[in-house]
Amino acid sequence: VTAEADQARMALAGDEQRIVQHYLRPLTGGVPEALDLIDDCALVRPEPGCELVFKTDAVVAGVHFFADDGPTDIAFKALAVNVSDLIAKAALPRFWQMTLAFPEPPRAIWLEQLCAGFADVQAQSGIRLIGGDLVKTTGPLVISITAVGTVRDGQMLRRGGGQPGDQVYVSGTIGDAALGLKLRAKDARAVAWPLDPGGRDHLVQRFLRPNLAMGLIAPLQQHARAGMDISDGLAIDFSRLCRAAGLGGTLFSADVPLSRPAALLLAADPTHLTTILTGGDDYEVLAAVAPDQSEAFEHEAQRAGITVKRIGELVAGSAIQVLDHHGQALQLGSGGYLHF
Amino acid sequence: VTAEADQARMALAGDEQRIVQHYLRPLTGGVPEALDLIDDCALVRPEPGCELVFKTDAVVAGVHFFADDGPTDIAFKALAVNVSDLIAKAALPRFWQMTLAFPEPPRAIWLEQLCAGFADVQAQSGIRLIGGDLVKTTGPLVISITAVGTVRDGQMLRRGGGQPGDQVYVSGTIGDAALGLKLRAKDARAVAWPLDPGGRDHLVQRFLRPNLAMGLIAPLQQHARAGMDISDGLAIDFSRLCRAAGLGGTLFSADVPLSRPAALLLAADPTHLTTILTGGDDYEVLAAVAPDQSEAFEHEAQRAGITVKRIGELVAGSAIQVLDHHGQALQLGSGGYLHF
Repeated sequence: VTAEADQARMALAGDEQRIVQHYLRPLTGGVPEALDLIDDCALVRPEPGCELVFKTDAVVAGVHFFADDGPTDIAFKALAVNVSDLIAKAALPRFWQMTLAFPEPPRAIWLEQLCAGFADVQAQSGIRLIGGDLVKTTGPLVISITAVGTVRDGQMLRRGGGQPGDQVYVSGTIGDAALGLKLRAKDARAVAWPLDPGGRDHLVQRFLRPNLAMGLIAPLQQHARAGMDISDGLAIDFSRLCRAAGLGGTLFSADVPLSRPAALLLAADPTHLTTILTGGDDYEVLAAVAPDQSEAFEHEAQRAGITVKRIGELVAGSAIQVLDHHGQALQLGSGGYLHF
Repeated sequence: VTAEADQARMALAGDEQRIVQHYLRPLTGGVPEALDLIDDCALVRPEPGCELVFKTDAVVAGVHFFADDGPTDIAFKALAVNVSDLIAKAALPRFWQMTLAFPEPPRAIWLEQLCAGFADVQAQSGIRLIGGDLVKTTGPLVISITAVGTVRDGQMLRRGGGQPGDQVYVSGTIGDAALGLKLRAKDARAVAWPLDPGGRDHLVQRFLRPNLAMGLIAPLQQHARAGMDISDGLAIDFSRLCRAAGLGGTLFSADVPLSRPAALLLAADPTHLTTILTGGDDYEVLAAVAPDQSEAFEHEAQRAGITVKRIGELVAGSAIQVLDHHGQALQLGSGGYLHF
């Protein structure tokens, strides 16, 4: 707390009101809970019969995103990774609070672009800003977000709600973001991948901008028994879904849904399978559905425009395996988070 | 997102579960909302007839505290400044979520001491940890906290709830933390202040460890019309209490409650008054009470063991003044946040 730091804090306090009222207040959408960001706290009146689902996730420049990523993409992902958790718990995204730690006084254009990314997620998900804090840091940009969703009493999908025989589904496609990260990082081998510009762009975009499967909330509420989002990699998160239920599970790698560019890469080089299954940053939904609900779940997801794919099942016992297209167990040990 | 950063992220992901389960899970106190920190989200079932009050405040090493402050004090203040807001809104502190951004893998002793500071605030306030995120940063330690309290429907004290003639009260004493900061920073002039070691220690402790006037929540609920905590300095926060109500106000500086060391310093050098009134970091309650409720408010606060002092009043119009002990208007312009 040097004299300079104190002065910077005072300058930011002066700027803070301007930033809050000019850039952030529009993100409240005028919801009464935000109190126009002019009071000291936000005030939420829960609907009768509802519970609130809380999630806090933070991102740091140079760790979770590239310091030279565009502010709109940074903001989109920072909020989307929180909303993704709410969706996977079958909760309706409602409110968020944010701490924004700036390394330097932000420029107007940067703030506009940042807020455009938040606004994109808000438009897709219905979530609204209701408060937060702006602080100065001597380090990299940090965005910490607490998101709140609502579910009917007792309807939040738990990680461990699955039962033996449940079918395990994922939304969207898997592995794109992990492959896209290698492209975004200009990894020497990735530069040589046999992809057209459209394929490259698809993968990078999937790293920068996770899908928000809002249409899946209602089918999950109706038909799923367990849910979580896939952030650390499909294989480890699948194993967590099993372990939390006290069960084993089998994941059929040949059934894992792939985008066209990911499928092309995998056909050209089977070692990409490890990246696809363990690379993480997918932010798709992983859910367990009772066998007699599977057909209805698939049907309703399709009606909502969301692709879901059955990729495995929960089984009694404690054995968790990933099988290849010959039914042989895969060893994913050294390449990812998962160590069998 | 270099290879090293990615590796650090993976190492932290491995450590994360250990830190969460060993150090942080005890801070849940076993409340069901935390789901033992093993699910992806926390789940809060609001009591019927209650509303939720949300506050997010963050602290950054080198900006809000000294990088070499003890982890117990850092943690205490990081959580206390959020709880202080809830108290001042007459809300019962209930739950918190935290993002902890580490510059380096934390050592066990550091984590223990950090959690001891959080536990102190929890023991004083009843608030319990229900979730959060641990992330790696290349910059200074950042602690971002979202705290949630409950109030009966419609009972949250707004910043702007005051009316003309309302008496304005503060809890505790004012200016200690701002004076303590100068001592903590080893400001050349502060080193020469005519204080005994006990007096110095009192002021520094008040900078490090804000009071939590938990006993004031009930009297505020019963008798106050407006409330906020004092973080940026009494003078600016008093003016905010007035402006939010669309009113003017008069603050009698001679009535501002001082600790014995602060009073000694002020007697020796009247220029300390600016620091006392504008220095900030008090984290005491500032509240507006209708004249016919003043006596009951004072009485109930006293019964709860909290000292409150009437320091001013709200008045019709827009003039906000700070009067000295002769009734002359003070100019506090250049020395603080407040520019009349």
